[in-house]
Amino acid sequence: MAGTVNEETTGAGRGLAPVVFFLSDSTGITAETLGNTLLTQFPGPRLERRSFPFITTEEQARDVVAVIDSLAAAGPRPIVFSTAVNREIREILSQSSGHFVDLFGSHIGQLEDVLQIPASGEPGKAHGVGDAIRYQSRMTAVEYAIEHDDGQSIRALERAELILIAPSRCGKTPTTMYLALQHGILAANFPLIEEDFAGRALPKPLQPFVRKCFGLTSLPIRLSQIRQERRPDSQYASLAQCTYELRSAEDMYRINQVPYVNSASMSVEEISATILQRMRLHH
Amino acid sequence: MAGTVNEETTGAGRGLAPVVFFLSDSTGITAETLGNTLLTQFPGPRLERRSFPFITTEEQARDVVAVIDSLAAAGPRPIVFSTAVNREIREILSQSSGHFVDLFGSHIGQLEDVLQIPASGEPGKAHGVGDAIRYQSRMTAVEYAIEHDDGQSIRALERAELILIAPSRCGKTPTTMYLALQHGILAANFPLIEEDFAGRALPKPLQPFVRKCFGLTSLPIRLSQIRQERRPDSQYASLAQCTYELRSAEDMYRINQVPYVNSASMSVEEISATILQRMRLHH
Repeated sequence: MAGTVNEETTGAGRGLAPVVFFLSDSTGITAETLGNTLLTQFPGPRLERRSFPFITTEEQARDVVAVIDSLAAAGPRPIVFSTAVNREIREILSQSSGHFVDLFGSHIGQLEDVLQIPASGEPGKAHGVGDAIRYQSRMTAVEYAIEHDDGQSIRALERAELILIAPSRCGKTPTTMYLALQHGILAANFPLIEEDFAGRALPKPLQPFVRKCFGLTSLPIRLSQIRQERRPDSQYASLAQCTYELRSAEDMYRINQVPYVNSASMSVEEISATILQRMRLHH
Repeated sequence: MAGTVNEETTGAGRGLAPVVFFLSDSTGITAETLGNTLLTQFPGPRLERRSFPFITTEEQARDVVAVIDSLAAAGPRPIVFSTAVNREIREILSQSSGHFVDLFGSHIGQLEDVLQIPASGEPGKAHGVGDAIRYQSRMTAVEYAIEHDDGQSIRALERAELILIAPSRCGKTPTTMYLALQHGILAANFPLIEEDFAGRALPKPLQPFVRKCFGLTSLPIRLSQIRQERRPDSQYASLAQCTYELRSAEDMYRINQVPYVNSASMSVEEISATILQRMRLHH
């Protein structure tokens, strides 16, 4: 049974902290997402996590239960997050010696009542190709994002739904990739450089598309740290230069009424959710 | 209150099908992920979905409740998926006229019992920067993936944890981006072209790294369709050429003992979960 171990704890740690399992008859993405969200509510030592996706036969389910049972016999009862959909497989998994947290079954009954139709019981389709047109739009968006990364191409900017602008190293590229891959947003990104700050106008190629622009800024000290890693002790990484570029960028955003956010302490997920909300860009 | 409407239904549709809300005091990613997973169990007309992330004050919560209540007054009761963590906010949201599906509260009590510590009650940190080192590794991986996309750079291939190989248009690029962005895997990808198929050896630059290679293949008819979109009626897109390239690639994988998967009907999420499992690559 090929599970994936995310994090090993020491032998001592294992004696005290339960191992966490994510079980699924599909990719396991939902089990990991909600399971990890719930666990962030319990700060403490990192727990060892093991993912077992694609449990599609009763035999595979029994093999996973054997792994859980053997751990339970030797130490604390594991915590088992499951999004298995198939009833027989769920039944087998629920009988392990672990604490079974049924992320799927707990809610499906409620939805059957609300929608007044029975659940299909087919294994998770949430992360499959699903709607082929929607899926294809995500793949197209990834290509578009790569082609239009860091101002590489200003061709077809009129196709963009979003143009992310910022000085170097504020998080444009990973945010663009996230929006493309997860949301199918056609997003270009464009770096603001020293010569753009002479006036307060947007760079020429962007001017026709000001309504699609969204700006990122950061804290000078944070940006300087990040640039130091790339080019230590350079003018580019100096606190003075970072302060100048960020202040100039913020002025440019304000004067041109480009909405912006300070990304210094935000993840790409948080930046992306903020952009989707403020630009009303959800597909 | 700036929510995001994902999908509009017709007026007629709205009269029959409930609107779905995803509410969160953080990014809303978890609410959307599990909510959508549950809804895939109920095939039927697409439901209108509205996301309200970052509900962090009681006033914002009451505003959302007002939106839900007004819809409930005019049509079927909305379905409300919530991952709000804060007790006061959850309490307000739970009192809307919608069907409240509390994805968070339903499980947190069970975990408090198991772990014997109270939940922190702080808004979701699951999609924040969290562990800064782990977060930074994801951002580094995105850069690495862009730099090593489509065989662009064979520098630093020894740093790669994974080298994805396949003929053109089998899904290498989006899979590489997904593994980088979601899992922080340092992944390069390398295209197999006609001249690579003369012998059955791996392309020279890959030979030292055969243990890191994973192959993709597809169905000739599917690959031909995808290539048609890029270069209609070309030799490149012909069924004969696609058949030849895929057969040759599969031979190459087998002879060099490179694990591979047929991506024809798989999503990037499914391909990625399969690769993580087979290459034992989870961080």
